[in-house]
Amino acid sequence: MASTANGSGWEEIAEAMQRHRADTIAAVEPTVPETPTELPLNVTGIPKELLSEGVLTITETPTERLVSQLATQKLTSTQVMKAFIQRAGLASKLVNCCTELLPERALERAKYLDDYIAEKKSPVGPLHGIPISVKEHIGMKGLDLNAGFVAWVGNIAPDDAIILKLLYKAGAVFYARTTEPQTLMHLETSNNIYGVTVNPYNTKLTPGGSSGGEGALLGMRGSCLGIGSDIGGSIRSPSANNGLFGLRPTAFRLPFAGWEGTMLGNESIIPVIGPLSTSLEGVKLFMKSILDQKPWIIDPSLVPMPWQTKSQLRQDANGKKKLRVGVLADDGIVRPHPPILRGINSIIEKLRSHSDIEVVDFPPYKSDEAWRIIASLYFGDGGSEEKEVLERSGEPWRPMSNFIIKENPYVKALTVPELWDLTIQREGYKAAYATHWNSVGTDFPGPDDYTSTFPGALLEGAEDKTVDVLLCPVGPGCAPPLDCARYWSYTAQWNLLDYPALVFPTGLQCSSEDQVDADYKPRNEKDEYNYKLYDPKTYIDAPISLQLVGRRYHDEMVVEPLEMIIQAVGLPFQQSP
Amino acid sequence: MASTANGSGWEEIAEAMQRHRADTIAAVEPTVPETPTELPLNVTGIPKELLSEGVLTITETPTERLVSQLATQKLTSTQVMKAFIQRAGLASKLVNCCTELLPERALERAKYLDDYIAEKKSPVGPLHGIPISVKEHIGMKGLDLNAGFVAWVGNIAPDDAIILKLLYKAGAVFYARTTEPQTLMHLETSNNIYGVTVNPYNTKLTPGGSSGGEGALLGMRGSCLGIGSDIGGSIRSPSANNGLFGLRPTAFRLPFAGWEGTMLGNESIIPVIGPLSTSLEGVKLFMKSILDQKPWIIDPSLVPMPWQTKSQLRQDANGKKKLRVGVLADDGIVRPHPPILRGINSIIEKLRSHSDIEVVDFPPYKSDEAWRIIASLYFGDGGSEEKEVLERSGEPWRPMSNFIIKENPYVKALTVPELWDLTIQREGYKAAYATHWNSVGTDFPGPDDYTSTFPGALLEGAEDKTVDVLLCPVGPGCAPPLDCARYWSYTAQWNLLDYPALVFPTGLQCSSEDQVDADYKPRNEKDEYNYKLYDPKTYIDAPISLQLVGRRYHDEMVVEPLEMIIQAVGLPFQQSP
Repeated sequence: MASTANGSGWEEIAEAMQRHRADTIAAVEPTVPETPTELPLNVTGIPKELLSEGVLTITETPTERLVSQLATQKLTSTQVMKAFIQRAGLASKLVNCCTELLPERALERAKYLDDYIAEKKSPVGPLHGIPISVKEHIGMKGLDLNAGFVAWVGNIAPDDAIILKLLYKAGAVFYARTTEPQTLMHLETSNNIYGVTVNPYNTKLTPGGSSGGEGALLGMRGSCLGIGSDIGGSIRSPSANNGLFGLRPTAFRLPFAGWEGTMLGNESIIPVIGPLSTSLEGVKLFMKSILDQKPWIIDPSLVPMPWQTKSQLRQDANGKKKLRVGVLADDGIVRPHPPILRGINSIIEKLRSHSDIEVVDFPPYKSDEAWRIIASLYFGDGGSEEKEVLERSGEPWRPMSNFIIKENPYVKALTVPELWDLTIQREGYKAAYATHWNSVGTDFPGPDDYTSTFPGALLEGAEDKTVDVLLCPVGPGCAPPLDCARYWSYTAQWNLLDYPALVFPTGLQCSSEDQVDADYKPRNEKDEYNYKLYDPKTYIDAPISLQLVGRRYHDEMVVEPLEMIIQAVGLPFQQSP
Repeated sequence: MASTANGSGWEEIAEAMQRHRADTIAAVEPTVPETPTELPLNVTGIPKELLSEGVLTITETPTERLVSQLATQKLTSTQVMKAFIQRAGLASKLVNCCTELLPERALERAKYLDDYIAEKKSPVGPLHGIPISVKEHIGMKGLDLNAGFVAWVGNIAPDDAIILKLLYKAGAVFYARTTEPQTLMHLETSNNIYGVTVNPYNTKLTPGGSSGGEGALLGMRGSCLGIGSDIGGSIRSPSANNGLFGLRPTAFRLPFAGWEGTMLGNESIIPVIGPLSTSLEGVKLFMKSILDQKPWIIDPSLVPMPWQTKSQLRQDANGKKKLRVGVLADDGIVRPHPPILRGINSIIEKLRSHSDIEVVDFPPYKSDEAWRIIASLYFGDGGSEEKEVLERSGEPWRPMSNFIIKENPYVKALTVPELWDLTIQREGYKAAYATHWNSVGTDFPGPDDYTSTFPGALLEGAEDKTVDVLLCPVGPGCAPPLDCARYWSYTAQWNLLDYPALVFPTGLQCSSEDQVDADYKPRNEKDEYNYKLYDPKTYIDAPISLQLVGRRYHDEMVVEPLEMIIQAVGLPFQQSP
């Protein structure tokens, strides 16, 4: 299927792709049920009405338990696969989250795994039989690879992306490919091939993006573990909006070779690949299964850091694990909506009474400048590649593409010296932020400015004195209404710094108790836009999620602290009715 | 001291800087001896004629032994400092290797260290009292920081570079600053401030560059440990040309914040900082003393990898350490001169008879393409920054600046999309080279091409099956005659790939036994240029050095294999008379 040369006909291409998708869903057995004509805003309860008990049980089992049940042959890979692919088909009908299902290859693979374990009495690898959903722009051999552009429909992946090969080797089964937005540069998910993906908890809201198909599919429990990618929040916004765990790892820990997108040679802000899961163990399994295979031996862009399973937490003299959590509830530019602040406060309150966890106020550091730098570095060609690809098919610009490229005051075709200058600013900001981090809760001075890349003084024992992790929002609110995800800083900040960031659900959801603060005076235009968006009725049922951020390359040191926090405060919280 | 605005007067600036240097040498006590009016080509023997036995003994003690003698108070830091600074002064008179000496601050620091150890009975740190020489463009608080440009004379460093702070904390004493070439982009050392630095073993030859002041000073034993920087061979060419150990570490293991140069925001090819030493232990001490301080806590550009002291070598079932060495004697483009081939053959011959070391032929992989890519990425602005800085003072272009910028066919002001395209080529080449490496001595297929960044298949157990390290030349000959270092590929190849590369002396020197191969038919223009340069008389006494290269980030896995090789073959070889 090729795009047309004269710019007409993009609608036909999209229709054909949608037909293909419908065909793949229709091929699923047992049949994917028809959806009711009248649907509630919150469709997460629909599967319970339409799917069998067995399917529901399997698809609501946490990833790590599926691993053990598969490895001990309590479940077959075929059983697991059939359950997930049926639920995925239903999910896609409800929230438009898949680009295609792969029943034939998935069941063939499942059969191979079942035969293998029957014969060898041991699993193929640590992910034996685990279904993994995959964002469309991560190439799968022989399948379309369009990255959300109509013009790229018909581009066939010559091989599986490296990450898929590694997961496959570990035992995974690929069965669903998921939607992404035009340009891959929205915190929402809408394109001209498949339309708009919506949030299962409230279909008037976005599931987030750009890995929004993953987010919505996992939110519907049509997947327990999925692969997303993130350059400004694209793993984390869907994780947050759908009540999931999602990790943006430090760059160059996981291999991304074999994916498709614009700006592939742009290394000013490094995009990453990472997991979304219904459980924290799913995130760990993903990381460990890949890193245990030493992917750096074949992909020299990677840093050879195995996944640490040894505890990284500080311990006191008695061997007790200690954690110091910085809390950044508000970035000083755009104040988060009441549900987010409720979520943070619920956690802090409980953390404060815990003897091994210290809570420290973590002031923001120039997040508007961070946004200026990152937004200037995203499209160093002025967005010319995106413009060219969109013009080629004649497809219209989606609102969020317009927002991030055409309406973005920082998008400009740079000269190489301008690019170098912005790179120095980026490094300067990174150095200043490290100084800032090291100053929190200590006597060390904060940064003067970020105009120099010079980190300044040596700080004796800084690592042990300052905060271990940072607790903060994932965005200025829960999942926003469609076409309104315009404030990226709560996630993009950590892309600029290349810090690992882990999203987790609090278990709470936006409700009528989260009233508008009628007396609030917005600080600026962005704050006003965000303030005006909010009404508890608009956001009803949206999951309240938060983010834990660590030092660069210290990915294990966000996962382990989250485990400690979950234990300490008893997550997920039960929402009061 | 400021440069002139109208482009005249650069000679006066240079003279003033030279006078300042002469004054700092004159301030050394005991006095630096006058040099004889008639000098041999090889001036490495001159110190023996002019310096005291005590000074000679101290300055010819290996770094690691100085460490223990200082830590046990067998030597005072003042004694050590006085010896090295006197010899450095003499060295600079003979080979023009220093930009200034720092007798006052060095002796003050030495006194502090002596008082400290006298009182506390323990050293300040692992480098207590060790003199370290520093390439000029690495900033020292309050001192000139011109990076070899006349226009930048008078630029005063606001602070010490981070690496100096770390070394200082470990106990180092800074006493000598060393020369570098105009633009820092020569494999030689000549600028318009201080003139030309020459090779102690043969003053008609270059000491290499750009850390050529370091190389010549260490070659004269006016230093035992020095700091250089490397983006195309700048640590390794001076190490090789002066018979030293020198490590180009993987990028972002050591901090470079606080140095000066052009193109600071250019991250297409990452420059690195690293040690040159008269001993291999000196190199290790340098790396470990810095990395033990966890510099990544203050400098987030760094990868948090401690220096591994645990053996990284493969072991057989009996715990015997095993090593597989690939040998790349000739890159297929420019054949190394006879002395280099003799050096390699001398080592291979002995390695082949060693039961725990396997020698494997390692074919070259498109090193001309590697050069095209790296040479295109060095000056993405078309060299406009260098041109501007040179024009500002009116200083003339040195021949090697001309060569690398004006005569270089790959230098071109790039657009950002062109830069991205070259970046994709660079990553493609890196992926292909990893495939190539993994194919050497195994059944794994080599790369098809390097037009894709896709690393291809997973290779089961590749790490254990292929070569551990690669033995190769450091250049297409020993130290070349002045203004003739025009072939960078033997070093720049590893900058492109960002592989750690360790230079070591064989103990051999170019002699009359290394006759011209009169029958050789050059392969191309570059090969012909190199072939015609060679005559044993021209290169007489030049040290024969080689390079050991490892996988990216596996810096420890070049150091430890070299230790095994040194033991196995008995380096340094004794040159036959």
